[in-house]
Amino acid sequence: MEPSRGFASDNCSGVHPDLLAALGRVNQGHVGSYGADPETARLDELARREFGPETRIFPMLNGTGANVAALRAMARPHQAVICPATAHLSIDETAAPEAIAGLKLLNVETGDGKLTPELAAQRLADRSDLPHVAWPVVVSISQSSEVGTVYSPDEVRALADFAHENGMLLHMDGSRLANAAASLGAGLAEASTDCGVDVLCLGANKNGAAFGEAVVFTDPALADGFPVLRKGTLQLASKMRFVSAQLVALLEDDFWREPAGSANAMATALGERAARIDGVELAQPVEANAVFITLDLDSAERFAAACEPHRPLLFSLGEIGVIRLVASWDTTIDDVDGLVAKLASAQDPAPFG
Amino acid sequence: MEPSRGFASDNCSGVHPDLLAALGRVNQGHVGSYGADPETARLDELARREFGPETRIFPMLNGTGANVAALRAMARPHQAVICPATAHLSIDETAAPEAIAGLKLLNVETGDGKLTPELAAQRLADRSDLPHVAWPVVVSISQSSEVGTVYSPDEVRALADFAHENGMLLHMDGSRLANAAASLGAGLAEASTDCGVDVLCLGANKNGAAFGEAVVFTDPALADGFPVLRKGTLQLASKMRFVSAQLVALLEDDFWREPAGSANAMATALGERAARIDGVELAQPVEANAVFITLDLDSAERFAAACEPHRPLLFSLGEIGVIRLVASWDTTIDDVDGLVAKLASAQDPAPFG
Amino acid sequence: MEPSRGFASDNCSGVHPDLLAALGRVNQGHVGSYGADPETARLDELARREFGPETRIFPMLNGTGANVAALRAMARPHQAVICPATAHLSIDETAAPEAIAGLKLLNVETGDGKLTPELAAQRLADRSDLPHVAWPVVVSISQSSEVGTVYSPDEVRALADFAHENGMLLHMDGSRLANAAASLGAGLAEASTDCGVDVLCLGANKNGAAFGEAVVFTDPALADGFPVLRKGTLQLASKMRFVSAQLVALLEDDFWREPAGSANAMATALGERAARIDGVELAQPVEANAVFITLDLDSAERFAAACEPHRPLLFSLGEIGVIRLVASWDTTIDDVDGLVAKLASAQDPAPFG
Amino acid sequence: MEPSRGFASDNCSGVHPDLLAALGRVNQGHVGSYGADPETARLDELARREFGPETRIFPMLNGTGANVAALRAMARPHQAVICPATAHLSIDETAAPEAIAGLKLLNVETGDGKLTPELAAQRLADRSDLPHVAWPVVVSISQSSEVGTVYSPDEVRALADFAHENGMLLHMDGSRLANAAASLGAGLAEASTDCGVDVLCLGANKNGAAFGEAVVFTDPALADGFPVLRKGTLQLASKMRFVSAQLVALLEDDFWREPAGSANAMATALGERAARIDGVELAQPVEANAVFITLDLDSAERFAAACEPHRPLLFSLGEIGVIRLVASWDTTIDDVDGLVAKLASAQDPAPFG
Repeated sequence: MEPSRGFASDNCSGVHPDLLAALGRVNQGHVGSYGADPETARLDELARREFGPETRIFPMLNGTGANVAALRAMARPHQAVICPATAHLSIDETAAPEAIAGLKLLNVETGDGKLTPELAAQRLADRSDLPHVAWPVVVSISQSSEVGTVYSPDEVRALADFAHENGMLLHMDGSRLANAAASLGAGLAEASTDCGVDVLCLGANKNGAAFGEAVVFTDPALADGFPVLRKGTLQLASKMRFVSAQLVALLEDDFWREPAGSANAMATALGERAARIDGVELAQPVEANAVFITLDLDSAERFAAACEPHRPLLFSLGEIGVIRLVASWDTTIDDVDGLVAKLASAQDPAPFG
Repeated sequence: MEPSRGFASDNCSGVHPDLLAALGRVNQGHVGSYGADPETARLDELARREFGPETRIFPMLNGTGANVAALRAMARPHQAVICPATAHLSIDETAAPEAIAGLKLLNVETGDGKLTPELAAQRLADRSDLPHVAWPVVVSISQSSEVGTVYSPDEVRALADFAHENGMLLHMDGSRLANAAASLGAGLAEASTDCGVDVLCLGANKNGAAFGEAVVFTDPALADGFPVLRKGTLQLASKMRFVSAQLVALLEDDFWREPAGSANAMATALGERAARIDGVELAQPVEANAVFITLDLDSAERFAAACEPHRPLLFSLGEIGVIRLVASWDTTIDDVDGLVAKLASAQDPAPFG
Repeated sequence: MEPSRGFASDNCSGVHPDLLAALGRVNQGHVGSYGADPETARLDELARREFGPETRIFPMLNGTGANVAALRAMARPHQAVICPATAHLSIDETAAPEAIAGLKLLNVETGDGKLTPELAAQRLADRSDLPHVAWPVVVSISQSSEVGTVYSPDEVRALADFAHENGMLLHMDGSRLANAAASLGAGLAEASTDCGVDVLCLGANKNGAAFGEAVVFTDPALADGFPVLRKGTLQLASKMRFVSAQLVALLEDDFWREPAGSANAMATALGERAARIDGVELAQPVEANAVFITLDLDSAERFAAACEPHRPLLFSLGEIGVIRLVASWDTTIDDVDGLVAKLASAQDPAPFG
Repeated sequence: MEPSRGFASDNCSGVHPDLLAALGRVNQGHVGSYGADPETARLDELARREFGPETRIFPMLNGTGANVAALRAMARPHQAVICPATAHLSIDETAAPEAIAGLKLLNVETGDGKLTPELAAQRLADRSDLPHVAWPVVVSISQSSEVGTVYSPDEVRALADFAHENGMLLHMDGSRLANAAASLGAGLAEASTDCGVDVLCLGANKNGAAFGEAVVFTDPALADGFPVLRKGTLQLASKMRFVSAQLVALLEDDFWREPAGSANAMATALGERAARIDGVELAQPVEANAVFITLDLDSAERFAAACEPHRPLLFSLGEIGVIRLVASWDTTIDDVDGLVAKLASAQDPAPFG
């Protein structure tokens, strides 16, 4: 089969050549296992430079594992987490936050995938409800959000202040933090920990890695028991250098900005061109690498089928189809044009029929 | 730092060049995420060929995750697992079988790391103890064992029969199954599922992979809910092709036998040469890639220090030191000779001192 | 302090004299512990008579424990339960369904505390979302509901059919089943298992017991592992005869109907009299033993304060206060009149002020 | 059936008349639920008087629940507890400490059911084993032990010192603390918290209660999150006054000493008389209310059968039978004599055979 690319998900893309090369680069002799290796030490150093001198960074195995382990460090069983109803935590982690961390997720409906202090305040509990109610101790947000929007630094700061004033911590699922930061023209820390995020799950996969993510603590006190939690949450890599090498390659000289920025640019181009087609509208502003469009359901289904084998997610809202299109680090403008052509055809199925 | 090799652990070695090449080979365009990719389909096919036509194989992220997820498929919370006191499950998985799978481990002391039906029978419960006692429903063994010994096919079969006659399933932690099979001159299935193992955790890391393991079910009924358990146990790779590619490379044409056989041969050579040194004895027969030696504690400590930065595990039994030395896929006979020389020096520290 | 009664909760009432007498009646000599006693055997017999010949009934320690243990029998970790947002499971069990049973609760907003097939259908998942989404396998309802409404047998049957058609089981939190059945003029089974409820948590506390509840399975296959789950969910009474004796006293000759019917009648009277007061409205129809009234927030707060030490729950909706008033098995019409007088005074605080 | 008494277990006895009377005494009107009642306030006061001015006491529902909730307050998931292999935690709680608290139990073989610092030290871990090993943070002992022996205050103090010196806390399963204290001629605190026990599970059932136990913290900092843990561990009584009333009755004027002392005296008498029978030996010194005897297996089985319906526990060690006989608060000297007669007959089955 000829290699091809699509817009189904940024998880469908492969590994960036520079990150693949990093795997080879660190494949020299024997080093300490489980993180006692020079590449992980190098990662520590880069993380301290980016996120602050007290930072502790922990390479992890996947995004759900990073989120669940981070939450276990921030909350104890029977407590609660306030998050958008669209959060990956809520929708896509098969109740692992509940079953493994023992937490209740308090969902909040949002229009644009972004929490605000006002929305989060709806789920605050009353002290007189203790111990019956699960008490919220964490606010969790995704940067960029699950619908492709980006929190400004001020918006993150407002949520951090709200969380801290109410005795809570702020967790960021940064599975696409690079896309958010590139979109903001900011650094990774500027779009996250500098604004008061207490624990950051730093994505690598969608930024071009083959595997691996990281958890970042800027307050070492929070990280105290984390080595045990990482191991117990089944996220400790034995040959950790191969995770660290990819993270190092991304952090070094802000290399992360290139693949993320490219994906964002392609999403922007796609959004602009798609929106010019009659009957197609943007469901959300395109601020990172995801594009959500609406069109009539029949056209949406035709279009989705035409995308095979890279069929995108399609949700139906009555007669309307919502389609998620995600640009990846390796998406090209030709890919965008090809997709837009398919979209136009689906929209106008039989001009001479 | 000049690359160097040691005998601290087979987790300290890197990735075999052929497996690294496999990562590059599958890095072509976009494919389905979470296992809906051609390389994972290829792995399915190879696994059915090796383990039988009904086999289902699931790529996983690490060994502890594979074990815990496998146990969750075999037992329900509040049940029990009979295993050697030396089992990785018992010693090295930071209570994840307990905390994540909700299981009690019923440990059995063994001389050589290997369970027998007679030893396992000590931990059978009495029906009148229900529901107070945690009821054993799984027997778990490591092939090769944690002390470097190997179960013969007949020994595995006897345990499988014992398990099944007592209403239990047999789990194999095959983190070093390739070493065991190579040692037996047998195939992977011949050393595991053909002898009645119900669920196999198939190791790849110690066999030369950079990351990733697998869980193998020969009875698809047992695998029924496993996709959810893999996800919920935080072991689902988004870009799964990169795990599958390494497993494919190992299974194809029994390539696994080469790195495993080489490690075994180096361990055998090391065992033989070490045992010739006065005061050094083999604590266990060398049957796979691990060598356990005993020597007086002072010498053991000098020797361990001399191995830095590849310091091996050292246990003290009163005046005796027990040292674990592990050969890897990339260990050379020069590495063996170098180590034996260090061992001889440590043993005779100051002949003219 | 002079004994007094209020409307804060039916948990504030004591034990019905007949049930207290039952404790004395069974306090004769030694009997088998953990349920191997004649009183528990008698309970089995009564339960089979009420709920059907295959019924298995398990005395439990409290309502949250009964719910969580029942859910553990109906679902495996990482699965989901569809329930009203007002469910006790969701609001008042401090994330125990999540942390202990490993389940996600999929909340549905209802106007009147009652789920319908249409509302529940909103939370059905799509097979293509597996294994990412937590899959619903249980529908849970409270009979009577948390806002004092009662499901008709047809409404329960419709939910049971919906659940079964979608591969789910129906759980009933029957913490106030006696009140519901008395309200319907039906038997306990007629208001629950006869309509297709698969697992019933049968309340006793609010019906006049000092402690203890029960879980009822009409299909013994579902109850298979339940003795272990009851023990593991920390709900196994050692001197079980004292729980069973109260349940026997309630089931024998449908004695449950008397305290439940009395509480219902007092709630009805309270609802009628309260609604006659200017500015007071019923937020929900009074169908069991709970009365929810609305009034302006200032009056609500004055009234709640006047009820001390039996202060009722008060929720504020902007300028409106919602107050929950619960009649108990021992509530008298004088209690009702006293409360109505307080309510009238609170409403009209200072006619000559 | 005529009421009768036996020696199968102190769980088989009923409720002491004075404790039953206490249930009636507190059955006056409505009081706050979930512990906001005057009887629970009275219990707090008595507990502070007995265990110290900072004491916090929490009524619980059963012994396993008390133990598991206490451990959840003392340790986090993935940590470990050192305890005797005979501990109720290990043998009789169906893996609830593992599944609910997420802990590993590190068992220690003891001759007499009692841990010592030397024995416990065998299970200390090495810092270099972190995070792979489950780290012990709690030492747990049963007072009196599961084999009927009693720790002296000095023995408890030595274990507390050992625990604290090694960064651990000392937990006491005091399901039979009253028996131990009566045996020592000491107060409840003198036999437990005064010797450095950090968290005490205070038994009531075996001391004559119908239901209910308690958890006692002398350091309020440890109790900080316990209200939530009690609720989440499914141990919060709604009508708590009925648990508290029994605990109050036991604590008031050291009433506990009478039923416990009586049971101890009967066990002592039984031990002395049994040991006079040829072929019968005491397996353990009789220090509380349990008597362990050994005799040949055939006689043991005849004897156990003769005890029906109060059949005692019987373990076989090859040709030897070990039988556990437990005296209760209501055991009489006639009961003892009757049992001794049965034992003598079983021993000499067919004098004229």
